[in-house]
Amino acid sequence: MVSFDEKLRRQLQKVFVCCGDVRRFRTDPLPPDIMERLIKTACLSPSVGLSQPWRFVVVEDKERRRAVTEDFAACNTNALLSDFGERAARYAALKLSGLEDAPGHLALFADKACETGHGLGRVTMPEASEYSVVAAICSMWLAARAENIGLGWVSILNPTRIREILDVPESWRLISYLCVGTPRQSPMSRGSKGLSGNIAEDGEFTSRR
Amino acid sequence: MVSFDEKLRRQLQKVFVCCGDVRRFRTDPLPPDIMERLIKTACLSPSVGLSQPWRFVVVEDKERRRAVTEDFAACNTNALLSDFGERAARYAALKLSGLEDAPGHLALFADKACETGHGLGRVTMPEASEYSVVAAICSMWLAARAENIGLGWVSILNPTRIREILDVPESWRLISYLCVGTPRQSPMSRGSKGLSGNIAEDGEFTSRR
Repeated sequence: MVSFDEKLRRQLQKVFVCCGDVRRFRTDPLPPDIMERLIKTACLSPSVGLSQPWRFVVVEDKERRRAVTEDFAACNTNALLSDFGERAARYAALKLSGLEDAPGHLALFADKACETGHGLGRVTMPEASEYSVVAAICSMWLAARAENIGLGWVSILNPTRIREILDVPESWRLISYLCVGTPRQSPMSRGSKGLSGNIAEDGEFTSRR
Repeated sequence: MVSFDEKLRRQLQKVFVCCGDVRRFRTDPLPPDIMERLIKTACLSPSVGLSQPWRFVVVEDKERRRAVTEDFAACNTNALLSDFGERAARYAALKLSGLEDAPGHLALFADKACETGHGLGRVTMPEASEYSVVAAICSMWLAARAENIGLGWVSILNPTRIREILDVPESWRLISYLCVGTPRQSPMSRGSKGLSGNIAEDGEFTSRR
């Protein structure tokens, strides 16, 4: 059996610790072929019933990028006005996406009409398709960081509007819109404090003995 | 900035290629503390609005394990009878879970009532909580493989029934029930053929130029 040693485990841990979400990107162009390489790695992920429901859209068109950035701004303003009340001022000061600076934009969808795998494993938990696409994103996330590239996950978007902007089939459900580029600083995990002490408070586990 | 080299990238790629879903486990006990270590790594994952909505339940009680295994059997039989028609015979021959052999059982939930992060990033896409838990599972998946342990994701379950069996709050939504143990053989990625040639057929990407 293929096995791994302590050195690999230490390095992998370092990747996890340096794999935070990125919102501040340098505007330098991406290394050539990086999107293809990352997508190739994403496709190695396990998926429910081997259905591989992931669909990737590399967004290069300036008008479409602008429309996505505007949708983010509109959703962000709405949240600010209606959902965050007294926290609105602090919320407004946060930088919540790198859409304007990031050289790469990549949208990921789950194809809910995907017939590969004949629905195996998706009868009682149909959301397993969406989760398979998240798994693909996570592989890509680590592979990108190992290439010294960072990703930023934007979820402050109207999924229907994004589907329209990108002109994709109705059966494709938006899972994530990713900013891709060189981070301005090392994206450290926000949970990494837990490493030096006990398991992070929110990561405490319950046991059923 | 923390940066990574070609050697790390090659090793990481090897982990991805050897990270398939596991259904055949050896019954040897797990290395001590492995669950705690894996959960600690999972907690390093990025999460929407830093909400860390992941909740872990290590299932050790024999009666509860038996009840989960029975729920799997019932859901599997139902799928066989009602959803797979002429493919039922082939479906029946597949080994779809390692629940009976795996020394470790771990249930993962997203706490939909989680207030950490004040809902940031979850207004237009509330499902980002569930996706954050999947991200934690993926970190754990790779970290486990680097420890020469394999995971098997069981989705052929009734989520409400699992919540009852494990006696967890109603706001906890089942994301995954994982089998944890030493695989009987190297769990190769089923998509790994794509590595030697072009991007896997289902991984083709669309470009919006």
